[in-house]
Amino acid sequence: MSLRRAFGKSVELVGHDISYSTAKMAQRRGAVDSVSANLPRAVETATMVIIATPVMAIREILETIAPNLSSGCIVTDTASTKQAVIEWANTHLPKNVSFVGCNPLIFKGISGIQGAHQDLFENAFYCVCPSPQASKESVESVTNMIKAVGARPYYIDAAEHDSYSAAVHQLPLIMSSALVTTASQSTSWRDISKQAAGDFEAMSKFSSQDPLENLDACITNKEALTNYLDQTIHELIKYRRLLAEDTEGLGKLFSQAFSSRAQWLNWRENGFPTDDAAKLPPMGSFGDRMTEMLVGGALMERYRRFEEVWQDREKRRERRDR
Amino acid sequence: MSLRRAFGKSVELVGHDISYSTAKMAQRRGAVDSVSANLPRAVETATMVIIATPVMAIREILETIAPNLSSGCIVTDTASTKQAVIEWANTHLPKNVSFVGCNPLIFKGISGIQGAHQDLFENAFYCVCPSPQASKESVESVTNMIKAVGARPYYIDAAEHDSYSAAVHQLPLIMSSALVTTASQSTSWRDISKQAAGDFEAMSKFSSQDPLENLDACITNKEALTNYLDQTIHELIKYRRLLAEDTEGLGKLFSQAFSSRAQWLNWRENGFPTDDAAKLPPMGSFGDRMTEMLVGGALMERYRRFEEVWQDREKRRERRDR
Repeated sequence: MSLRRAFGKSVELVGHDISYSTAKMAQRRGAVDSVSANLPRAVETATMVIIATPVMAIREILETIAPNLSSGCIVTDTASTKQAVIEWANTHLPKNVSFVGCNPLIFKGISGIQGAHQDLFENAFYCVCPSPQASKESVESVTNMIKAVGARPYYIDAAEHDSYSAAVHQLPLIMSSALVTTASQSTSWRDISKQAAGDFEAMSKFSSQDPLENLDACITNKEALTNYLDQTIHELIKYRRLLAEDTEGLGKLFSQAFSSRAQWLNWRENGFPTDDAAKLPPMGSFGDRMTEMLVGGALMERYRRFEEVWQDREKRRERRDR
Repeated sequence: MSLRRAFGKSVELVGHDISYSTAKMAQRRGAVDSVSANLPRAVETATMVIIATPVMAIREILETIAPNLSSGCIVTDTASTKQAVIEWANTHLPKNVSFVGCNPLIFKGISGIQGAHQDLFENAFYCVCPSPQASKESVESVTNMIKAVGARPYYIDAAEHDSYSAAVHQLPLIMSSALVTTASQSTSWRDISKQAAGDFEAMSKFSSQDPLENLDACITNKEALTNYLDQTIHELIKYRRLLAEDTEGLGKLFSQAFSSRAQWLNWRENGFPTDDAAKLPPMGSFGDRMTEMLVGGALMERYRRFEEVWQDREKRRERRDR
């Protein structure tokens, strides 16, 4: 839909999907001119092929289309891990075809054809990881395509891409699922879920994605993801310890997270700093208030009496348990 | 705004906020008839007082307003933990005032006066935990208020409420913050955050809430929250192990989470079951596909060759590290 808006009728867009009815829906929504039920035939005369599927499906698709691609054709994708995809492209695609791996960083929208929108790529960073064999012209073509849909090309090494991707794409998937696993394994799951509201809905959302898509993304980025999972487990143990022992420390941790996210939103709004010594921007008003209260001792006053009650209760419980 | 819609001019709504300008904004948006900068005076003639602040602020508010409440007045709140609030009410409120603790389970909307909307409570469960001292009439009045704003009263014991609340309200706060802490502590935080998109934005959202509000909610529900944190840490260790050793097991875990969330959404849509032997509803189409692939062995075929590559890479790395 973005390409249509950018190029009008000067490009021919051909769609294919594993589900023919989904492909037809894309046609009805004006995303493609025609659909082809036959994948190899769909790509036969293409100058560019864009693969937007779960990661692991890409391997088979590359194998299937390879013999039918015309010389000079450019193949690109949209998966959130890039090293595996580039390896497959090198293995399966002929030498006269260029593979330029991509990952558009989308903010709005839901997945599936229902979430399609011509403004989806507006202003988004669009990661570009060319295969070592890709021609200079193919990278230029993909860059033009990215600019045409309103996005900003972001050239990055595939290994580097995947190491960052683990922290912001695959780790959130696992945390979202782990939240649901935790809550739903309780014998009170029915009552727990009855008490769930917008916060649980938002935090569990990614467990409702195609489990195969989640699994694919994690499996193709094991090393980096394992590393971030270790760190998250470590962090949660810290949160747990501070919750039990150190209210002020827990407050600092919440405040740090608040300020880091504010920093990210600020960078997103005003540009990411180019020098490595990027200074921390001012915290938002809540973070300021928190710091003020920490420095002024007001925070501890807020909790002092409550802590006494808590400790009393703990003692009573200990006596009871003995 | 919901009360206004329900009762028109037959009720007088008086607003107070720690920030006078926020109170005035509420008046401009039509939420209250008048505002009072003086809290004790604001409640003087009230038949019902609704406290909607971070949990820990409620204690001080109860202390402050207690002497000025008229006999027979009903006090209620909206915090996500209830036992502490009810304890404070018992300590500070006079005997001729009834406290009915509440927690409206809101789905839409953002916090703050900007998120105010007259439809916010439409169809939402609204937890009601009366203090033991509350009169029968006060519970009826609060029930009527809840129905008037379009919500569904849900009577629940405060201790039970808090134990469930930990899983779906406080645990998500900590997981959201822990995700940000993990990502932002990396020396590559700037590059990591540049690669963040809608998934990270959604999963980190609650770290952008007032850190004091997050801290309050956690501190007032330590015991249950600690328990759920332990389980989540345990779950994440399981995800990590399966990621390294057992692709099929990891797939099952994603699939389980998928199906549990589908179950929740189904219950929400069609009513929560009343019998304890609530049967699992059919999984959504993706869950079905996953199960089919697991049973038919297609899933393992999907990953078999990839696993070989992964193990090869691991071996090479081990040799290199030696």
